[in-house]
Amino acid sequence: MVLEKERTYQVIGTRPVRPDGVDKVTGRAQYGADIRLPGMLFGKVLRSPHAHARVRRIDTSKALAHPDVRAVVTSADLPEPEDRVQELGEGAANLRELSSNVLAREKVLYRGHAVAAVAATNAHAAQEALALIEVEYEPLPAVLDVRDAMREDAPLLHENLRGKTPEGPRAAPSNIAAHTCFNFGDLEQGFAEADVVVEREFRTKMVHQGYIEPHASTALWNADGQLTVWTCTQGSFPVREQLAQVLGHPISRIKVVPTEIGGGFGGKIPVYLEPLAALLSRATGKPVKMQMDRAEVFEATGPTSGTWSKVKLGAKNDGTLVACEATLAYEAGAYPGSPVTAGAMTMIAPYRLEHVRIDAYDVVVNKPKVSAYRAPGAPAAAFAMEQVVDELAERLGIDPLRFRLENAAHEGSRTPWGAPHPRIGHEECLEAALSSAHYNAPLEGANRGRGVASGYWFNAGLRSSVTVTVMPDGTVSLIEGSTDIGGTRASLAMQLAETLGIAYEDVKPTVVDTDSVGYNDVTGGSRVTYGSGMAVYEAGRKLIDEIRTRLSKHWQRPVEEIAHADGRFRTADGQHDEPFKEVCRQLMTRGEGISASASVNARGGAGAFAVHIVDVEVDPETGKTTVLRYTAVQDAGKAVHPSYVEGQMQGGVVQGIGWALNEEYYYGDSGRMANASFLDYRMPTALDVPMIETIIVEVPSPTHPYGVRGVGEVPIVPPLAAIANAVYRATGVRQTELPMSPRRILETTLGVE
Amino acid sequence: MVLEKERTYQVIGTRPVRPDGVDKVTGRAQYGADIRLPGMLFGKVLRSPHAHARVRRIDTSKALAHPDVRAVVTSADLPEPEDRVQELGEGAANLRELSSNVLAREKVLYRGHAVAAVAATNAHAAQEALALIEVEYEPLPAVLDVRDAMREDAPLLHENLRGKTPEGPRAAPSNIAAHTCFNFGDLEQGFAEADVVVEREFRTKMVHQGYIEPHASTALWNADGQLTVWTCTQGSFPVREQLAQVLGHPISRIKVVPTEIGGGFGGKIPVYLEPLAALLSRATGKPVKMQMDRAEVFEATGPTSGTWSKVKLGAKNDGTLVACEATLAYEAGAYPGSPVTAGAMTMIAPYRLEHVRIDAYDVVVNKPKVSAYRAPGAPAAAFAMEQVVDELAERLGIDPLRFRLENAAHEGSRTPWGAPHPRIGHEECLEAALSSAHYNAPLEGANRGRGVASGYWFNAGLRSSVTVTVMPDGTVSLIEGSTDIGGTRASLAMQLAETLGIAYEDVKPTVVDTDSVGYNDVTGGSRVTYGSGMAVYEAGRKLIDEIRTRLSKHWQRPVEEIAHADGRFRTADGQHDEPFKEVCRQLMTRGEGISASASVNARGGAGAFAVHIVDVEVDPETGKTTVLRYTAVQDAGKAVHPSYVEGQMQGGVVQGIGWALNEEYYYGDSGRMANASFLDYRMPTALDVPMIETIIVEVPSPTHPYGVRGVGEVPIVPPLAAIANAVYRATGVRQTELPMSPRRILETTLGVE
Repeated sequence: MVLEKERTYQVIGTRPVRPDGVDKVTGRAQYGADIRLPGMLFGKVLRSPHAHARVRRIDTSKALAHPDVRAVVTSADLPEPEDRVQELGEGAANLRELSSNVLAREKVLYRGHAVAAVAATNAHAAQEALALIEVEYEPLPAVLDVRDAMREDAPLLHENLRGKTPEGPRAAPSNIAAHTCFNFGDLEQGFAEADVVVEREFRTKMVHQGYIEPHASTALWNADGQLTVWTCTQGSFPVREQLAQVLGHPISRIKVVPTEIGGGFGGKIPVYLEPLAALLSRATGKPVKMQMDRAEVFEATGPTSGTWSKVKLGAKNDGTLVACEATLAYEAGAYPGSPVTAGAMTMIAPYRLEHVRIDAYDVVVNKPKVSAYRAPGAPAAAFAMEQVVDELAERLGIDPLRFRLENAAHEGSRTPWGAPHPRIGHEECLEAALSSAHYNAPLEGANRGRGVASGYWFNAGLRSSVTVTVMPDGTVSLIEGSTDIGGTRASLAMQLAETLGIAYEDVKPTVVDTDSVGYNDVTGGSRVTYGSGMAVYEAGRKLIDEIRTRLSKHWQRPVEEIAHADGRFRTADGQHDEPFKEVCRQLMTRGEGISASASVNARGGAGAFAVHIVDVEVDPETGKTTVLRYTAVQDAGKAVHPSYVEGQMQGGVVQGIGWALNEEYYYGDSGRMANASFLDYRMPTALDVPMIETIIVEVPSPTHPYGVRGVGEVPIVPPLAAIANAVYRATGVRQTELPMSPRRILETTLGVE
Repeated sequence: MVLEKERTYQVIGTRPVRPDGVDKVTGRAQYGADIRLPGMLFGKVLRSPHAHARVRRIDTSKALAHPDVRAVVTSADLPEPEDRVQELGEGAANLRELSSNVLAREKVLYRGHAVAAVAATNAHAAQEALALIEVEYEPLPAVLDVRDAMREDAPLLHENLRGKTPEGPRAAPSNIAAHTCFNFGDLEQGFAEADVVVEREFRTKMVHQGYIEPHASTALWNADGQLTVWTCTQGSFPVREQLAQVLGHPISRIKVVPTEIGGGFGGKIPVYLEPLAALLSRATGKPVKMQMDRAEVFEATGPTSGTWSKVKLGAKNDGTLVACEATLAYEAGAYPGSPVTAGAMTMIAPYRLEHVRIDAYDVVVNKPKVSAYRAPGAPAAAFAMEQVVDELAERLGIDPLRFRLENAAHEGSRTPWGAPHPRIGHEECLEAALSSAHYNAPLEGANRGRGVASGYWFNAGLRSSVTVTVMPDGTVSLIEGSTDIGGTRASLAMQLAETLGIAYEDVKPTVVDTDSVGYNDVTGGSRVTYGSGMAVYEAGRKLIDEIRTRLSKHWQRPVEEIAHADGRFRTADGQHDEPFKEVCRQLMTRGEGISASASVNARGGAGAFAVHIVDVEVDPETGKTTVLRYTAVQDAGKAVHPSYVEGQMQGGVVQGIGWALNEEYYYGDSGRMANASFLDYRMPTALDVPMIETIIVEVPSPTHPYGVRGVGEVPIVPPLAAIANAVYRATGVRQTELPMSPRRILETTLGVE
């Protein structure tokens, strides 16, 4: 279901088949593990068995003596990195930390931390040789929980980490890498105005994105110093930058070829295997392929933070929110960099609030360094905030959607980061939810409850480049550098077709390597259809101008007299009036090629809101929660390809359901993840979820020519809270910890332990 | 040795290492036969054993029943082509003839003509299955020699071929596909003014380019109708066009990926295996790879014409050439299209001549359809003309170089095609030859002789497109579509470096597929360094303007105040003055990518002249001719990379030596080539030739920003005549037939048969 407004389009809003569809369903698409090169070696990684230990000595001599082994590398093979922060596409990284996460230096900081890598003539020999590497560890006490890690007596991960605070660096080293404070209005005055105040604490566990395709990378370090890396990544250009920094190799001597990607959700932005394969290839002169197994994906890539939070929210009796005080503490994993500030900002972005203070703590623990995961930081914060909002609404006797509508942020409202909101669609989403069939359907039966929640995500803009070229038959080739995760070949081709006034089928999109197109930031931040779409639009406009110039000579008219509209080039007097394809065919037959390149640095400002409604039934015997019905309402700005928007909404909800009900990194005391397989790490399957209903709201973004907003991330923001609110309505018990597994439901509803 | 004039450059004129060098010497470069795809099948071609026959019936059923065979295709699998001429890059092709040459229809027209193709799970099975295809032939009388084919009673290859003549189509069908006449001045008056007239007839045999790499192509016809073809070709875009026409498939559904290429010289422009591999892939749903063996290369690709010519040339006693009458007849092979008109034009282009008539005949014979071969048509015509010029000089008692200098064409002289010559370098080349060490060295000893000859080649311009992109470190990626045969990655990168004012090493050139860059005509006509160089120059200028616009915002100055010179961007007041790389690094860190695309349709007009000097010794006992010393003088306009210019000059000379002394298609009566292997087809080896000395003359082309002229083809034009003139001086006998093999020398000098 799509709620349309304003402009109409020829191509945008239709639902064509994706260009990469046939290759993907016939198995012809090349994913990371499908790369095979002549003379290729296979690499494996030796990983730390300890959650925290000093590395005393590494002896690789026995492994090197293995007849099938060709090279062994350790951090000694990496250049000493500078201790500075470098912009790397979406977000920045401290280079020393990036390098140390790739191969541990003095210390291992989590179980699974890479210590050495082996290349052999086959994968089995490489695996065998790992056991021949002797590593002498001095085990250290580990700290696994965010609150434990914040204690003054906690074991320190980084002896010199003096975290940033609003008042400057901390005096003493600690595990608190950063303390950020969002503070405006007058909190005391705000709470004094409040008639009702709710305050609660919440906890969530570390969870993984759970993409189907494990990481896989192949590298060839050529004799001339040219490094080529084939890898499944969300950003070939950021991978190139990270490789240049970690390896100390000139960026222009590195080419990254992105393969197809079987899911990423933020987890395929940092490099893990890429630098190892490169080092092993440099050492051997051969191409080296590496791929992870599922346990490695869980233990040694970038899940998202376990969190602790406390939220205090006050409202007047008339239903006006007045003040919010909150503390968030997020696990960063082994190196600083949790998404806690994004959590802080997004949790209050849906509302008009005058008095706010949020303290946000980024905390290192002996677990894998977190990476982005779909709206990073926002779901856990919304889990807290949206339950407190729900409780306030209940206390005030106001419908929870109406309560949100009363307090909803709109164009001009203050954002947590100061600037006013541009045109946004929270109110429109709430109205659509209020009038939806789902919300107006009765929910009958015992142990059932209905919950709602809102969510916000910024959406990024960032840098994109494309090149467009007219083919001899008047169709157009679109060369892009954004790896296609969610159907962006289609959504970009559609925007180019719309701009040029030609059919979608007449645009042929191709994702190329880092040498073959201008700079592109990561496929992340829900930015590609938005930001790369702006590059496509600009390239299309340039192409039209180029064609008008060429027609000017051809038709012997001043260029100003030649207009492009409705896919046709025409003169005002009607003497010339021909469609795009025909014009291009003629020009191509007589003259040189027609191409245009465009690069943009897209501003953000096209934030997205989602409102979700969920009905659950909680089995009082087993504690199992069944999702009976789920409706996701979301402002897409303009849905370029509604099916793919719906797919993003449904996918985000399903991941949210898993996070809410079952998923968690389950640790034993030793710091070992006990459930590092898909058998024990319980993600939802098709049997666990109903068909997710979708309502696309279209409040055009003012910063995009077609009104597009990013759609990929915000649908994972509300589910955790919406389900918790529904469980509360079904059981009468507030769920303040995730996952709401059967065991936890029984413990909280029956008092069982 | 380089004779320099005029402008100086920073990068142009230096001799850096080629970017593809390491891959080529380490074996990592991927040539046509190196492509391997999962599930790949192997294809083989069934070829006609007859030089001329009607095809009564083809029964493929037994071959299809072979357990390892997956498909068999014949011309019945190709769409019925239109009988029309289509522009296909360099030159045009009749589509019906192109299609019939790919797979024979009613008739086979030469031994080796493709009749069917088989795909099997391995190459041996495919070869085996060829014998299971039953073809019923009705043999027809064949005609193999150009003069025989012109007879009225000759067997007709094409029953409906009514050749074009200056007076319109012929009344009756014949093997004469075209008769063209170049006619200006008054021939009768011209010869009346002549004091000396020489008239002779000449014959040359069909010869092959002899590239090292046999043709190899792999095709994947995907389930979605996307056809991808990997092939070693001189022009990926013309291959795409030919495939679209022959297969009747939309051009935008075809992607051609050019591999590295082990020589082409004009022979890798037409399609042979590409459409067969595509048909077999369409039939099987699998990728299909095909490669030729050497016999197939000789018998079934496109060598150059055997020729017959008669030249009558008159001069005054003062040494002024006055009139030329000539008849040229060139074998086209099985389908029309010999380079006879190019021969006619180039033979007189070096001279000022007022009265001219040349009749040029294009004649079909039962031999493979000729393709381009390095300055196509010119060497055989120069073999005739330059010997007659030599004989006239001798009769007049004038030094042969001075005689040429007296009569040399220069800027403003009439060309055979009417327009005046632009600035050209024939006189400069003759002067350089006259003052060369070689020409001034005495030649002593019996049976030795020195010969000279001039040569001309037009050089093409045609269409090129490139995209240039700034990398984050301020270096530049150059995306091009011209396959690199003779070092054009380097020569284009050098021109971009010169334009931008950066180091050669800071430009990274890549040759990409037909989807990934704008339209590019074939790598042929000596055009890439010239024409694609113009595209590179234009893209570089656009990049500079783009950077100036960006700097304008950054430096807060009007764009007009920001200049680019000597590789630096600066303001007139000197407040800003920074090198290109540093400026780009800063801009890239702060903002979007920087790219530019350019497409040009380069006019020709940069014709090249060569003058060669050769010393030979002829063994009176064996008839063997030894080349003692060879100097090639050539106007390169501006030698971008002098080593590669010298390499082209040396390569052209060596091919000319082979053509002059040993190479020929040796036919038995049945129309079977008796020497279709490198063992029997005698090309020169390193032991057969001395080091070829080179003198590069630089008379800048007025049509190229750096004065470049094409250099690849003209060096093959003079050798045939220069060596014949030298043999004459050594033996006293004029050589009017090629090759001047030991046997032929003995026959002509001793009267032996």
